[in-house]
Amino acid sequence: MLVANRFLSIDAGVRARLAGDSYRPRSRLGEVIDGFAVGVVIESRHSKFPVGARVSSANGWQTHYLSDGKGLLRLDDRIFSPPIPDSAAIGVLGVSGLTAYFGLRLGGPRPSETVLVSSAAGPVGATAGQIASIRGCQVVGIAGGDRRCAYVTAELGFAACIDRRTSEDLAGAIRHSCPGGVDVYLDNVGGEVLDAALLNMNRGGRVVLCGQVSEYNRVTPRGARNVNEIVERSLTMQGFVVWDFLSEFKAATAELAGWIRGGRLRWHEEVVEGFERAPQAFSDLFAGSFLGRCLIKLY
Amino acid sequence: MLVANRFLSIDAGVRARLAGDSYRPRSRLGEVIDGFAVGVVIESRHSKFPVGARVSSANGWQTHYLSDGKGLLRLDDRIFSPPIPDSAAIGVLGVSGLTAYFGLRLGGPRPSETVLVSSAAGPVGATAGQIASIRGCQVVGIAGGDRRCAYVTAELGFAACIDRRTSEDLAGAIRHSCPGGVDVYLDNVGGEVLDAALLNMNRGGRVVLCGQVSEYNRVTPRGARNVNEIVERSLTMQGFVVWDFLSEFKAATAELAGWIRGGRLRWHEEVVEGFERAPQAFSDLFAGSFLGRCLIKLY
Repeated sequence: MLVANRFLSIDAGVRARLAGDSYRPRSRLGEVIDGFAVGVVIESRHSKFPVGARVSSANGWQTHYLSDGKGLLRLDDRIFSPPIPDSAAIGVLGVSGLTAYFGLRLGGPRPSETVLVSSAAGPVGATAGQIASIRGCQVVGIAGGDRRCAYVTAELGFAACIDRRTSEDLAGAIRHSCPGGVDVYLDNVGGEVLDAALLNMNRGGRVVLCGQVSEYNRVTPRGARNVNEIVERSLTMQGFVVWDFLSEFKAATAELAGWIRGGRLRWHEEVVEGFERAPQAFSDLFAGSFLGRCLIKLY
Repeated sequence: MLVANRFLSIDAGVRARLAGDSYRPRSRLGEVIDGFAVGVVIESRHSKFPVGARVSSANGWQTHYLSDGKGLLRLDDRIFSPPIPDSAAIGVLGVSGLTAYFGLRLGGPRPSETVLVSSAAGPVGATAGQIASIRGCQVVGIAGGDRRCAYVTAELGFAACIDRRTSEDLAGAIRHSCPGGVDVYLDNVGGEVLDAALLNMNRGGRVVLCGQVSEYNRVTPRGARNVNEIVERSLTMQGFVVWDFLSEFKAATAELAGWIRGGRLRWHEEVVEGFERAPQAFSDLFAGSFLGRCLIKLY
């Protein structure tokens, strides 16, 4: 079959492969850049993917590709129908939403516990925080800049959002917003933000590492300085990649879609038009100017 | 009652309280230094602790103390009888042995998995590694110096022991000794040793932080640089303090004592004679000259 992509995702995790720091092989010159894509089958000799079928893939930044169906997922019409757009398949109902879903589950939040989320305006953090609210938790975000913090509290309904750009004492700001301490911290950032969170964890607290964006552009990693807090506070720190939960994707997607239809889960897409603008969008991602998921729209 | 202590323990963890980095309040001038002690009741008006009763406490470095029994543990004659000496109550059957016991359990090692243990000649590491052997694991140690490494392999029966003093590439040395990767890493050290271990963990591996001795003498913490490996390899990093398991101490002590009587669990004590030598022994502990538990013998 031949697939014409309509949307491509811009993913921070690509940085790790470019740098050779990933669990997957280093990207080489001439290779297709990693990314998720959603598109439409425009020619087909495959019985399960007729012309017109909508498919998502992890085949990277390509306008078109040939496929025998391996690794492709056909969009389920019951899920991908208004008000849910196809682009959600590589966003809130794709890897970023699933990362939020399983990451929060690993943290095991109990009702009325305090959940802290970094990159709270990003696609993983925004979704994770809203699910934590659905689970009955008190949710506090950390994000960079006025626009994002306003989005997190006004649109997503978090109890508070700390602006890490204007906060000179991040640990103190977390203490102020989470006076009862933090039970679950969902970390998308690592580095100094992780260190500040560690100083605010309650005994037996859980730190889930969904990503470590602050590390991806470093030549040598910085990591976390306050590791001893993990001992002193009897913390669990759990890392994962979303593929660990592949067998549960379908059920999780259905639950996420249900929350969207029920008006309980919102998301935002930054849509950049044109394939040729993908490299700049990737660079902008690290400058931290986006809200939610960044997508390239091809047509 | 009046208790005359016979043995005091020298504990690295005291360093955190002296520095103000502990979950407990900072030690102040004039206060008794933390430590475990085992002694004998020499005067008593307490029905449960008659004269001659052997008791352990966490009352610190004192030759004698008055007590109403609170926080004291009377040594069980069924456990503390030859060949098990009273001193074991503050060593292999005390906090260090229990830390090893619960730490390894948190790591959830399965038979034939590879368990890596740092400070392998120390009281926690030596005990944890032997329990891992009893559980059917392949056990590799990391220790400092010839004497310790020889002890770990020849006396404790670990498959291999890496000398971190002579190893210029610790991550490479671990890779060489653990060619199938590491499933469970019991960390007593932190810092560079933890970073080297993280680079050798198998997917889904478990890192248990029993202590972070390399951090205790630092003004600002170093922590771990390779935190991103926790994400990339889907690791769990768990910290704990042994008091989390207080309700299980009795059952764990009985199991440890059974292994000792069965000849399956060995331990070593470095006994320094004389109360006045305790400060020097504490300092020597960080120089890394001891094998096993360091105790002060008072009489």
